[in-house]
Amino acid sequence: MDNAVSMDESHVVPRTATGESSLSRAVRVLEAFTSDEPELSVTEVARRAGLHVATASRIVGQLAGHGLLERAPDRRVRIGVRMWELASRASPTRSLRDAAMPYLEDLHAVVGHHAQLAVRDGDDVLFLERLSARDAVVNFSRIAGRLPVHLSSSGVVLLAYGPADLQERVLAGSLERYTAATVTSPARLRALLEQVRRQGWALLAGHVHADATGVAVPVRNGLGEVVAALSVIVPNDDRAPSAVPVLLAAARGIGRALGVGGGS
Amino acid sequence: MDNAVSMDESHVVPRTATGESSLSRAVRVLEAFTSDEPELSVTEVARRAGLHVATASRIVGQLAGHGLLERAPDRRVRIGVRMWELASRASPTRSLRDAAMPYLEDLHAVVGHHAQLAVRDGDDVLFLERLSARDAVVNFSRIAGRLPVHLSSSGVVLLAYGPADLQERVLAGSLERYTAATVTSPARLRALLEQVRRQGWALLAGHVHADATGVAVPVRNGLGEVVAALSVIVPNDDRAPSAVPVLLAAARGIGRALGVGGGS
Repeated sequence: MDNAVSMDESHVVPRTATGESSLSRAVRVLEAFTSDEPELSVTEVARRAGLHVATASRIVGQLAGHGLLERAPDRRVRIGVRMWELASRASPTRSLRDAAMPYLEDLHAVVGHHAQLAVRDGDDVLFLERLSARDAVVNFSRIAGRLPVHLSSSGVVLLAYGPADLQERVLAGSLERYTAATVTSPARLRALLEQVRRQGWALLAGHVHADATGVAVPVRNGLGEVVAALSVIVPNDDRAPSAVPVLLAAARGIGRALGVGGGS
Repeated sequence: MDNAVSMDESHVVPRTATGESSLSRAVRVLEAFTSDEPELSVTEVARRAGLHVATASRIVGQLAGHGLLERAPDRRVRIGVRMWELASRASPTRSLRDAAMPYLEDLHAVVGHHAQLAVRDGDDVLFLERLSARDAVVNFSRIAGRLPVHLSSSGVVLLAYGPADLQERVLAGSLERYTAATVTSPARLRALLEQVRRQGWALLAGHVHADATGVAVPVRNGLGEVVAALSVIVPNDDRAPSAVPVLLAAARGIGRALGVGGGS
């Protein structure tokens, strides 16, 4: 990758050790906005992106000129509708999401609470879609939100069917604890992954939040490759296992809709 | 807006008349990807973005380094999952979409075919969400797709309740024809907008495609401001008007869920 410095900016900020490009700085500005804080002042953007305020202000101006950022009425800054449009109209997960959506709706109608579609991105689970009932049980996942892969039922499914080097890396790393039930021992996680592969689904009661149970199954494309996890989050009680058959049936439907090589 | 040239690139491409920044070129690269062609070779990216192949290749490499683009197994390039994540997790339309989703599901379950949520962006309608049945009638709109504002039922609703200067601009401009039924006369469009404001909904039979009817209603936030259009696309027959009451009820529910100032 080319890390050329934009010389026109070298009088504003010192040239960094890596010769950071203006594009890198623009990406850091975009990364400053999160689900919890979707609107920021330019000063906050500068602080989060590690930029001088003048630099942040100039980059915000450029991004706003292209519609990738927009200004709220109070002059705070947020992600622009154009950014969402560019990312969504040619989204790499579009075909997977389109194939899954009718089944996700059916799942949500039948099971209630939360029905979710997730993929693995690096060592995280990334949630692509979630349908939630208004009175549903607590759920920490969000659309475009991430969770470590060992933590949730979706993550454990994607880890169980993931590449061996990912499994070894996760098992060797630190396994963050969310609740008393979270699996943080590598030996227990290894046993859990074997169980998931043997039975074809994961049921994790209270691993992310004590009140909630995640039930997840793999979604396979026409080549048999696991390309996603389909899950429901339901109350942590003895009815949770009844979600397994409807999840397995829905995942088969999504797989047929994807066809050979879909969802990759 | 600052249009400073990145001097490090001035030996690669001629300095443009406007002194185009490297960020502008990166945006043009991102804009090359569309719903119809979500994967492109670097040569195609260069052609669409109006850049030299070497420049396009370098920018693609930078964007891929940040995950905003990714390479398919055949080396073609597509929008990256990271780009989707950054745009979606802090999306400016997130609260509107979250408030609308349960009602959109109900509409879709009851009416079938397509249920849609749209906002106005400039002189276009931008579709934020669409739930579609597998055997649904033809529909030209797509998620993150645009249509001119005079054309669809959603657009006519957003135009009818939109600012006066937008109405005058659209009425003075050229009104593109899609079918024999499309309203292309300013006088007829003006009358249609008055009718929509009077009755509180729009029903456009065959304006986008001869076989389909769009029925749309405004979504108001707690301040009474129209912030979106809720619509269904159904077959072009005499049952279409029966969708009006369920749309009006769903729009009220979304408005309550949005609260004061929501969805702006």
